[in-house]
Amino acid sequence: MQTEIITIGNELLIGQVIDTNSAWIGEQLNKEGFSINRITSISDNADEIKDTVTEALKRVDIVLITGGLGPTKDDITKKTLAELFDTKLVFNEVMYNNVQKFLKGRGLNTVNELNKAQALVPENCTPIVNKVGTAPIMWFEKNGKIVVSMPGVPLEMKTAIKDEIIPRLKKKFNSGVIIHQTILVFDYPEAELAEKLHDWENALPKEISLAYLPAPGRVRLRLTARGENKKYLESLVKNEVKKLDTIIGNNIYGYADEPPAAILGRLLKEKKATVATAESCTGGTIGHLITAIPGSSEYFKGGVIAYANSIKEEVLGVKHDTLETYGAVSREVVEQMAEGARKLMKTDYAIATSGIAGPGGEVKEKTVYSRCSTRTVGAKPVVIPGKPVGTVWIAISTPEKTFSIMFSFGKIRERNIQRSAEYGLVLLIKYLETGKFYKKA
Amino acid sequence: MQTEIITIGNELLIGQVIDTNSAWIGEQLNKEGFSINRITSISDNADEIKDTVTEALKRVDIVLITGGLGPTKDDITKKTLAELFDTKLVFNEVMYNNVQKFLKGRGLNTVNELNKAQALVPENCTPIVNKVGTAPIMWFEKNGKIVVSMPGVPLEMKTAIKDEIIPRLKKKFNSGVIIHQTILVFDYPEAELAEKLHDWENALPKEISLAYLPAPGRVRLRLTARGENKKYLESLVKNEVKKLDTIIGNNIYGYADEPPAAILGRLLKEKKATVATAESCTGGTIGHLITAIPGSSEYFKGGVIAYANSIKEEVLGVKHDTLETYGAVSREVVEQMAEGARKLMKTDYAIATSGIAGPGGEVKEKTVYSRCSTRTVGAKPVVIPGKPVGTVWIAISTPEKTFSIMFSFGKIRERNIQRSAEYGLVLLIKYLETGKFYKKA
Repeated sequence: MQTEIITIGNELLIGQVIDTNSAWIGEQLNKEGFSINRITSISDNADEIKDTVTEALKRVDIVLITGGLGPTKDDITKKTLAELFDTKLVFNEVMYNNVQKFLKGRGLNTVNELNKAQALVPENCTPIVNKVGTAPIMWFEKNGKIVVSMPGVPLEMKTAIKDEIIPRLKKKFNSGVIIHQTILVFDYPEAELAEKLHDWENALPKEISLAYLPAPGRVRLRLTARGENKKYLESLVKNEVKKLDTIIGNNIYGYADEPPAAILGRLLKEKKATVATAESCTGGTIGHLITAIPGSSEYFKGGVIAYANSIKEEVLGVKHDTLETYGAVSREVVEQMAEGARKLMKTDYAIATSGIAGPGGEVKEKTVYSRCSTRTVGAKPVVIPGKPVGTVWIAISTPEKTFSIMFSFGKIRERNIQRSAEYGLVLLIKYLETGKFYKKA
Repeated sequence: MQTEIITIGNELLIGQVIDTNSAWIGEQLNKEGFSINRITSISDNADEIKDTVTEALKRVDIVLITGGLGPTKDDITKKTLAELFDTKLVFNEVMYNNVQKFLKGRGLNTVNELNKAQALVPENCTPIVNKVGTAPIMWFEKNGKIVVSMPGVPLEMKTAIKDEIIPRLKKKFNSGVIIHQTILVFDYPEAELAEKLHDWENALPKEISLAYLPAPGRVRLRLTARGENKKYLESLVKNEVKKLDTIIGNNIYGYADEPPAAILGRLLKEKKATVATAESCTGGTIGHLITAIPGSSEYFKGGVIAYANSIKEEVLGVKHDTLETYGAVSREVVEQMAEGARKLMKTDYAIATSGIAGPGGEVKEKTVYSRCSTRTVGAKPVVIPGKPVGTVWIAISTPEKTFSIMFSFGKIRERNIQRSAEYGLVLLIKYLETGKFYKKA
């Protein structure tokens, strides 16, 4: 079934906000067998909205709109859709109750006029309650075609798509049986992975298609099987996953489309184990990812963000000499950080990172002579190699042993931080799954 | 001058890649006075490309296209544009030399057929050398209208836009003056803010328009002035900002379109001051935001993620009695956390958070009797009020004093965490800007 997405907002056109909604919607709908024909971003302008929706309806059967629904007066989508569908705005009690409930939850007991106006909806649409906001979702049907208007706030849009729009679209348009199987792969560049999987991919049964969905430092492989017989499709997919395990099992860390922090949380809960973090280059990102998962207080006790070397020493107990000799970005330091965090926080496991996120911070090669800082006659020189931007050491401390590994990521700060944090989580996941520390093949 | 952007690529429609090119182009062009009318993303399909370009040319005078120019066989933009402009592809010596030069720079001395084909350009376009890649940029003019086709690789597109396209467009179209001014507001729900600003907004001079751009827990107001005289427009904008300061100055924390962590970083560098964090409910998010800014090691020493109460006590030195009596989510505890972090990390400032992110963790009202845990005859009862999900205490410890404030956010974990982290940063920004701790009006 052909679909178009329209995103509304001046902020999208002048580059103040990047339209991430469309890509997300595209991914979700594509998974369910709906194809996206076009994505259009337009301004908060009644004529533009009317023209774009009208044109889209000539091409496709489903038009999904996000944005332009806030309570301020520059939001005109609702009025325009009412005009387009030849109807008027009417007050809706259910929507009003939701606005009231939502504001009450935020400690506001009065509903002002602007918020009250959010309860107005076009008379001939099916209004759908926004569970995480005040602007209603509006579902229009006309001559077998569907137009849905949603808020532009990503959380509100995502909740609407997942809980309401996709189930309703699937009910309306029967799209056969579709099965997805995600395989989570890390530490394998996409181009190399594609080469490695070339023969296997070419031999896939005709019911199964493969997609590469990149994520920071990881690749999500998605197998999609389409047909009529669910059991048959499932057995086909299972068989292909088995083959994949043989080819790239060392780099697979999961089989569900969920973030590493969710997988780690499940594994730790199963083992009734706890974890702590010691973060240098990731600056709190690992903690941020772990605690994004509800219920993480069950296994996450806390962490130390040891950005300055003094914190590594004084709070985590990294030895001054080790820092002097090997530098902060080294196997020796990152392992002491992980052990320090595990001891300080009294946890079963700890994850530590120390790296050069960039753009500054590159370390030149240097030669040191034993533990002394001055050259001693007869002392054995040790060459400490230079560390370019993107060099990251990650350690895992476990009740059995402390392990560490170095990665060379790229030049882009944001990506290096994200990748280091995700890899820290994945390394502990792999250890919990296999009882062994990850080694590059 | 009205412009449209068209981005080509199947990967954009199924959510494999987020279209960041359009936002970037929009920002650059908007700054130069060109307005963006529409952004359209389509698939690598000849008919789609033809239709989209033809429609866009009916609406506007400038159409900028990115994507669909790589050397692989699914890139058909060039052929389609040649057809659309009624011409054929011809071999271009200058473009070929660029391909050769570029491949040589990457250590390749032979030009294969796919790369050679990149030197083919439509006969009636002005080909422009791609300084950082092999695909030529193509500039078409017809009946006073401009169509430019660029590669989709962000670096190649950006180089073309900055060095070639904008200078050429400015030469061709005199586009008037546009000035933007962002005003950053926090702790003011959008609807209430709109009500508060209603009269001021209605009295805005005709040259100035206003937009509300929401962000988690914050609102960015954007004033846009259009006209011919830059100095005059600047004075108009300045005057309106002054009025805004009078109306909502207490909630304004900045005047540039940048994240709180960047503003805080600048202020701390100016004062040569350092900061540490003590995060409970934000779980590392404040550290994550601070360290996303390059150069943050200059002022950020580190932090403690004190998710479990034992970490609050043992690492940050929060008193056991205080935790017992008031609970972790309290003024008393969050202030001790901030002070503990400041002391432990030896910094000038510290930010601490303790709250209930949800969905679990709600605290019921309780009555305590003095410091003892058992009821004592004659002891004065103290009622500790219940704490619903969304209750967050934030403290700022400074060399002068430690301050704290409670917020009631909503029910949604992700948003509560993000909002608490942003507010933590903004509270320190406001303190550094004004020398006073923020108080609700």
